[in-house]
Amino acid sequence: MKIITSPSNPTIKFIRSLKQKKERESSGLYFVEGIRLVGEAFRTQQKFVHVVVCFDLLDSLFGKEMISQIADQGIDTISVSESVFLSIALKEGPQGIMAVIEEKWDALDAITRIKGLWVALDSVQDPGNLGSIFRSTDAADGKGIVLMDDSADPYHPTSVRASMGAIFTQKIVKTTFGGFAQWKKLNNYPLIGTFCGEELNYRSYNYPKDMVLLMGSEQKGLSSKLVEICDRLVTIPMKGTMDSLNLSNATSIILFEILAQHAG
Amino acid sequence: MKIITSPSNPTIKFIRSLKQKKERESSGLYFVEGIRLVGEAFRTQQKFVHVVVCFDLLDSLFGKEMISQIADQGIDTISVSESVFLSIALKEGPQGIMAVIEEKWDALDAITRIKGLWVALDSVQDPGNLGSIFRSTDAADGKGIVLMDDSADPYHPTSVRASMGAIFTQKIVKTTFGGFAQWKKLNNYPLIGTFCGEELNYRSYNYPKDMVLLMGSEQKGLSSKLVEICDRLVTIPMKGTMDSLNLSNATSIILFEILAQHAG
Repeated sequence: MKIITSPSNPTIKFIRSLKQKKERESSGLYFVEGIRLVGEAFRTQQKFVHVVVCFDLLDSLFGKEMISQIADQGIDTISVSESVFLSIALKEGPQGIMAVIEEKWDALDAITRIKGLWVALDSVQDPGNLGSIFRSTDAADGKGIVLMDDSADPYHPTSVRASMGAIFTQKIVKTTFGGFAQWKKLNNYPLIGTFCGEELNYRSYNYPKDMVLLMGSEQKGLSSKLVEICDRLVTIPMKGTMDSLNLSNATSIILFEILAQHAG
Repeated sequence: MKIITSPSNPTIKFIRSLKQKKERESSGLYFVEGIRLVGEAFRTQQKFVHVVVCFDLLDSLFGKEMISQIADQGIDTISVSESVFLSIALKEGPQGIMAVIEEKWDALDAITRIKGLWVALDSVQDPGNLGSIFRSTDAADGKGIVLMDDSADPYHPTSVRASMGAIFTQKIVKTTFGGFAQWKKLNNYPLIGTFCGEELNYRSYNYPKDMVLLMGSEQKGLSSKLVEICDRLVTIPMKGTMDSLNLSNATSIILFEILAQHAG
């Protein structure tokens, strides 16, 4: 196998460009890094375009075995020098393995087809928050996440990493407020919103099996037009001096109340 | 008031250096930025060393009023040009106000003196996680956070910002495993640990009013020597493909179970 040693090799330049949202959007590709994430992507049968390996950095026997399994499936395997790998790598302690993968997106009808618990987010800003919401949604038996309007990109490297691989298994729907409101009107799928200061304690409501949990943005909470289309609004009562929680924490608290109710 | 226009002015260089942990450690100072955080610091009577203002960036009347109140208390007020302010500022959309504040640290005996709910963290790595744990702890009526061994710095700018000001009101204790174990032995203050795969569901345990909730690190969970000193271990049951949650999300889920029990 030929080893690429030039950081300005066109394929390497392209992979590096996938750190930018506009390049991910135009190509429909993103990249994941590290043994665990690449392994999860492979196990869950994501569509690989390239796998990039640096044998000088890849110590792990498990990682080497995985590379040969991936190559056996006919996936383009690119071997690079350490300096080339480090010119793309994001995180400290690079493990010498990354993959370029096709983004997957679903339409709103996935909700009514698959049913169960979903999360909808309005204009979530922080990709780290978004990734950890994927992780919690998966752990709470959720099926997927609906991203409305100006949301952070779930395929942003920070989101991918924070999701710990949950973006591979969760469905991802991108829509607008208009599209979502229209879908809600047509399908009447239960929509439970979280609203600061609302009367109904999130622990006093019996959550249906099939529902969308709707969370507002970090800065502004739930907008009034979203409040209008909710079937119910619940709130998380707080003490102390804070009047709100981190979005990912608030989402997780409610998801695990729902999970406990459904399990109990 | 004289306006500092040189980014290499010694005071400005010193403030900029507070982004680095070693400079914060040697000086015992940190900085906060933005109208909301500086306002919270002032309201909660933190010990200000300087307040830095850039009148070209400070649009808000509320912010201007705050500056004059702070100056009225005899706190050193430094007026800087826009380029100097931007040379220190961290976040996008700088609001033209920041403050240099004395760190506050408490000893372990604060727990037995103040009592109530505390959180102890072993080697938390991510300052954003740490900050949002402060925020959730405050909102769940917690009194403070114990940081063991190699923890991220609560006064890291990312932690300060993510805490939304909760670091001003929460007590902050820094200790070692040895110190904490010794304190636990002497005081026998209830210590509830979270451990992946333990039998006791976190929702089935009745949490005492006075307790420390102990969380392991993001990477390794709770170490066996910490498990040994816990009175009880609880677990968060999960579904889906994930076998763990983001540390801040896991901490928030348990804190809000405790809050609900204590309120109910």
